[in-house]
Amino acid sequence: MKIYGDSQSGNCYKIQLLCSLLDIEHQWIAVNILAGDTGKADFLEKNPNGKIPLLELVDGRYVSESNAILNYLAYGSELLPTEPFLLAKVQQWQFFEQYSHEPYIAVARFIARYLGLPEERKEEYRAKQAGGHKALAVMEQQLSTTPYLTGNDLTTADISLYGYTHVAQEGGFELQRYPAIGDWLQRISALPGYIDMGTD
Amino acid sequence: MKIYGDSQSGNCYKIQLLCSLLDIEHQWIAVNILAGDTGKADFLEKNPNGKIPLLELVDGRYVSESNAILNYLAYGSELLPTEPFLLAKVQQWQFFEQYSHEPYIAVARFIARYLGLPEERKEEYRAKQAGGHKALAVMEQQLSTTPYLTGNDLTTADISLYGYTHVAQEGGFELQRYPAIGDWLQRISALPGYIDMGTD
Repeated sequence: MKIYGDSQSGNCYKIQLLCSLLDIEHQWIAVNILAGDTGKADFLEKNPNGKIPLLELVDGRYVSESNAILNYLAYGSELLPTEPFLLAKVQQWQFFEQYSHEPYIAVARFIARYLGLPEERKEEYRAKQAGGHKALAVMEQQLSTTPYLTGNDLTTADISLYGYTHVAQEGGFELQRYPAIGDWLQRISALPGYIDMGTD
Repeated sequence: MKIYGDSQSGNCYKIQLLCSLLDIEHQWIAVNILAGDTGKADFLEKNPNGKIPLLELVDGRYVSESNAILNYLAYGSELLPTEPFLLAKVQQWQFFEQYSHEPYIAVARFIARYLGLPEERKEEYRAKQAGGHKALAVMEQQLSTTPYLTGNDLTTADISLYGYTHVAQEGGFELQRYPAIGDWLQRISALPGYIDMGTD
């Protein structure tokens, strides 16, 4: 099994973290987004949407989209509930992550950390702050009542949201305002098998 | 079971269409986004993220995010595969929908149809066109090889993508350029139980 990714990307780190927590053997193939690797013809043959992470199964089939990959890899493990309501809540948080969290927090981080906050994107960067804080407030509300996003147990929903939340300060989001998120981040970073972002 | 939604929203229509195809009884509660209903305190108690559609179970628990609701309601039916790889592909297309399709096509449609393409949003509207066509091209490539997005059978992934694709022209996207998408739209609209968008 191969995973194509860039370990500086939170979407890719989610997969690395899950594989480490579940001890899933795989071959990591580094892809450089900033160098345009995902737009090249040989990559587009693998994923026509030109995005990483991308999972290649041993039989040559592919799965794209970080959260779809997470749930596929966690299938049958304790990290993916089988009870329909809990499974719906896992997906609810993952769709929330892709629509209401990542486009603000990950994009602000990208503009600040990778592009160096250039003048022409400062307005966009500032515009991302309100949406990011709204997403963090929704998480804070949930994590004030349960240790993990869907209840008492860690699921792939937590891995999804951990990816960019734990580096949100790189996008200008002060996490001190969110104590329950802070506790949750610590809980995850203390898990057996935890690895830091940026490990190739 | 109650579903809170606005039948002019593609995200809400997905749920109405699925319920009609699977003959799922429910109470539809109309919520007016433009009137600010989703930002009011009584709604935020139900969904802190302030979005529709929202599913309320008979026991008072909630599920938000259109695609999480679709998969929950389709659980155990022929519209949601149980085989892990197919299930991953369903989710792959649904995450694609929320990240690479809806933010371009649905937003362009909203600006044009509901806001009347005001001067101050024309630049944003034009900026949405490239991303929307990219998403449509990814769909066209898949639908040129299989009748439905994940293969030979209709799944909730098709319902997800149908929601905004079938009204993409309202956002300025000419669908004549995508013959395989056109055939797929016709295939879905011919299904027993099909209902049009805008049915309250």
